[in-house]
Amino acid sequence: METDIRHMKWWGWGYEDVTFNDSEKPELWPYLKRELGVNEIRWDKPISFHDVILPEQKHNDGFLANLKQKLDSDQIVQDKKTRLTHAAGKSFRDLWLIRHGDIKFAPDCIIFPNNENDVVSIMHAAKEHGVVLIPFGGGSNIAGCLEPKDLSNRMVVSLDMCRMHKVIEIDQYSLIARIQPGVYGQHLEDQLTEHGVTLGHFPDSFLHSTLGGWVATRSAGMQSDIYGKIEDMVISLRMVTPSGTIITRTVPKSSNGIDIRHLCIGSEGILGVITEVTIQVHKKPEKEDWYGWLFPDFQSGIDAIHECHRYNCIPTVTRLNDPKKTALSFAFKTPKTGMKATIANAFKWYIGNVKKINFNQCCLMVVKYEGTQQEFKNIRKKVSSIYKKHRGVCLGAEPGRSFAKVKFDFPHLRDFTMDRSIMADVSETATTWKNLCTMHKNGLVEIEKAIKDTGVNGWVGCHLSHSYHSGASLYFTFGCLQREDREIEQYLYIKKAAEDAFMNNGGTLSHHHAVGTEHLPWIEQDLSSTGLKAVKALKAGLDPNGIMNPGKIIPSEKPLVDWGLSEEAIEKFKSHS
Amino acid sequence: METDIRHMKWWGWGYEDVTFNDSEKPELWPYLKRELGVNEIRWDKPISFHDVILPEQKHNDGFLANLKQKLDSDQIVQDKKTRLTHAAGKSFRDLWLIRHGDIKFAPDCIIFPNNENDVVSIMHAAKEHGVVLIPFGGGSNIAGCLEPKDLSNRMVVSLDMCRMHKVIEIDQYSLIARIQPGVYGQHLEDQLTEHGVTLGHFPDSFLHSTLGGWVATRSAGMQSDIYGKIEDMVISLRMVTPSGTIITRTVPKSSNGIDIRHLCIGSEGILGVITEVTIQVHKKPEKEDWYGWLFPDFQSGIDAIHECHRYNCIPTVTRLNDPKKTALSFAFKTPKTGMKATIANAFKWYIGNVKKINFNQCCLMVVKYEGTQQEFKNIRKKVSSIYKKHRGVCLGAEPGRSFAKVKFDFPHLRDFTMDRSIMADVSETATTWKNLCTMHKNGLVEIEKAIKDTGVNGWVGCHLSHSYHSGASLYFTFGCLQREDREIEQYLYIKKAAEDAFMNNGGTLSHHHAVGTEHLPWIEQDLSSTGLKAVKALKAGLDPNGIMNPGKIIPSEKPLVDWGLSEEAIEKFKSHS
Repeated sequence: METDIRHMKWWGWGYEDVTFNDSEKPELWPYLKRELGVNEIRWDKPISFHDVILPEQKHNDGFLANLKQKLDSDQIVQDKKTRLTHAAGKSFRDLWLIRHGDIKFAPDCIIFPNNENDVVSIMHAAKEHGVVLIPFGGGSNIAGCLEPKDLSNRMVVSLDMCRMHKVIEIDQYSLIARIQPGVYGQHLEDQLTEHGVTLGHFPDSFLHSTLGGWVATRSAGMQSDIYGKIEDMVISLRMVTPSGTIITRTVPKSSNGIDIRHLCIGSEGILGVITEVTIQVHKKPEKEDWYGWLFPDFQSGIDAIHECHRYNCIPTVTRLNDPKKTALSFAFKTPKTGMKATIANAFKWYIGNVKKINFNQCCLMVVKYEGTQQEFKNIRKKVSSIYKKHRGVCLGAEPGRSFAKVKFDFPHLRDFTMDRSIMADVSETATTWKNLCTMHKNGLVEIEKAIKDTGVNGWVGCHLSHSYHSGASLYFTFGCLQREDREIEQYLYIKKAAEDAFMNNGGTLSHHHAVGTEHLPWIEQDLSSTGLKAVKALKAGLDPNGIMNPGKIIPSEKPLVDWGLSEEAIEKFKSHS
Repeated sequence: METDIRHMKWWGWGYEDVTFNDSEKPELWPYLKRELGVNEIRWDKPISFHDVILPEQKHNDGFLANLKQKLDSDQIVQDKKTRLTHAAGKSFRDLWLIRHGDIKFAPDCIIFPNNENDVVSIMHAAKEHGVVLIPFGGGSNIAGCLEPKDLSNRMVVSLDMCRMHKVIEIDQYSLIARIQPGVYGQHLEDQLTEHGVTLGHFPDSFLHSTLGGWVATRSAGMQSDIYGKIEDMVISLRMVTPSGTIITRTVPKSSNGIDIRHLCIGSEGILGVITEVTIQVHKKPEKEDWYGWLFPDFQSGIDAIHECHRYNCIPTVTRLNDPKKTALSFAFKTPKTGMKATIANAFKWYIGNVKKINFNQCCLMVVKYEGTQQEFKNIRKKVSSIYKKHRGVCLGAEPGRSFAKVKFDFPHLRDFTMDRSIMADVSETATTWKNLCTMHKNGLVEIEKAIKDTGVNGWVGCHLSHSYHSGASLYFTFGCLQREDREIEQYLYIKKAAEDAFMNNGGTLSHHHAVGTEHLPWIEQDLSSTGLKAVKALKAGLDPNGIMNPGKIIPSEKPLVDWGLSEEAIEKFKSHS
């Protein structure tokens, strides 16, 4: 089955046969070199597959014997390549370690259930034989949700859901679809398109992530302003836990006490395995198109987005880059030649000299509208008039369409930088409109300061890509040359600065990337200690032996140290040694 | 403090000085008499306050001594009247028992906290001294959420939140407000109106229910189609539990694992006391108005509402009555005289003879639009054209405005019927669009059949007043003459038919009335047994000694019997004896 083998490369983003290519982006590397102060490239390519040594496989003969009676032989896989592709997600830490062959944990076995019955059988066997299960969707998580680490040294099984990839049923009148959780984004939309509907969920990871993964991590797609986050779309679900199967009813709304759906959504595999999702879908819009706008500064762009919410005219996609992100976007472009270049230069002159936009402060916004022909025209008109009020200048469809073409390519950039000994990562949050500009400013300052502490120049940019009635998300991207021999510590020190800034400025630890292990040091601050007690109570009640994805969401007693950052390491950076 | 004393009358709906008056509704009683087959009124007035005997007060001296040090003396109240007004909610069972002086349970003491610190002190004392706490908002709950029954015979305290009634802070830019939970609907809107904003939450209980109560029960207001149910509005909250205070962050969205807000929302007091809610508010619309429409049948009305959702033009309020509910609405009207009567008759002739609407099948819909002048015009135009496509006839503003005037009066009708030995109650659910008509039909059939089983004629009607992308709610109202000496059994037998029909036709046990005790027999079917285990795990983890509102949401081993309906009683009705 093809979907079985379309996993991402073990050492980076995307399929094995897809490599990031900067040959058509001649501005990119010069820009990065300049920004990061790279004099000479220090190459740091991943080790070869041949040289990878996986941790010794743990065996649980009773468990495997039990399942061999119930599953086909091709459902249980234990070869090196499969273990390696399931050994980590795609956080900077995950990738840095795996690229250097520093692989402390790998699943001992990967099982591919074909249906919910298989999951139940696996759950029973795992419970009986004390085996750890880690649900695996596309493996795209960047918060450490997939780390196959078990402190009790039990056998660890990665439960790869990719064979459960069918849209089971579409109710066209109610516009809801029953879908298996292991389906990848593109395959899901392909199946829905056959019926003229769409889920409208397009995270950056779309090509390499699954419905089940989205639900388990409270994912957001770029169309969330209209379609909602995934938690807003789920009508009902089924989740197999060590204590039985949670089944919620397919109704639009209820008052049945505590909403059980929301115990499953966002549970990141620590309570069970999501085996079915019934979710709202939408008729495919008649027309859709993308546009680019330029704002004189970030505040003007934010004010414009805010006003769209207040007048209830909200584009399908709104993605506002801050000045740094805007500069990176421009460096990402394929340069124009001939007549196109002449026109582009003339337009640039017009923007700078007539519209008085300062190119060091300007902010690129990408917008998508959709609807019937009439709705499309109406929303574009209303939004444009608000944007103009805030000194936005329309760049036409070209920049928007260019963005749309490469919209799933950005994660590749990290492999490119890591090859060159450059740390690159992201941290994102959400806060109220009132806090937004302060959060942006302080986020940049704190991350930049932390990078400086590590002795190098940094690049820090931010974009806003999800906005709501009461606030919006801010997505920070940062990079810098690595400190040799302190690469992980350096990354954690900078990451900590970002997360601390989120907590100190009225944000949350993540808007859509999950807690996993990477955000564990902030979970208690985010949920409050009693909130965390509630999560622990659920865990203790549904998974008393802790067989489900241990170590995620619920922190240890010393979260920062167990995360990998000692007081000593912090002090060393702070004193710039 | 005035808000302290504005509780509802102990034996029925509304303030002590407000009585339902049918003198301006000459059609009402004749209509009910005819429908229910009443030959002669069997009067059944509530006993007098003087004759009420409350259960003996339980004392816990340590608890009271502790709190008397921390609270003012007027915060701890133990008089008969206050105990009585806190002894029950407003379910049919609650009212029938209390009207007959059959009061098996009453709180031993009522405490009025002034702030969260008071709640924490009370919680500590209750924990230390083994006292039961039941959070009390407006006392309007009709699902038995307030029953002050404790199987372990501990002292029971009703925690009346009405002194915590302030809007603490409004963030006009983010459009969110921090609000204390004890504020009543009208008082809340009055405070918000001073700042030009509205919550937009108007349940039928609006005058007599509180923000905290709404959040604890997942309430829905009549504007939910646009403003959402209460669970869609809450940005963050604080809840004092026996294990500490849950505090969530004020951010629009998050991916911080399991969404702790949703453990508190809908928890019906079994986990703790909500002490603060931060919630989204909206600018007051420039213009709003109500309209009446007539549809030839229920299906046409549903199709029209469905199509509005598909074309994304959704009125602020849509309330579609089925034929029976429509007939009741017409019987509820004050008749016109003179010229107005002539015009009304002419219009009636036009509807019947030109529009060919059959008055036995026709369905009245009440609609509200709002927005800027332009938005108002646009939405009215778009919706009207859809309604006309489905053979709707606009009745102008008058029927809509009449509804708006009396919109909070309907619950009074039950006191009127109970005075006349007529059982009247409601059961409501939600289901997908696809199931909606079947649910309506089968709901009516099953409830009517159950009433017949009890040996009398029934009246059963239904309306649809909350609709969503994927489905809608259905609200059944039913009434019949009471079987003497089997009043509660008769009620339960009929209620069971309604709830069974909801379960068997793809619905939920309640769309917005909570589980309480009245829906306990269906909670396991609704949540699945593992879902219920999750709720029990939360309860065990946060409230290990079970001091918070015992007996709600989590059913006993024999839910139907403990609910009050034995197999024997069922059999007796089934065999029409």
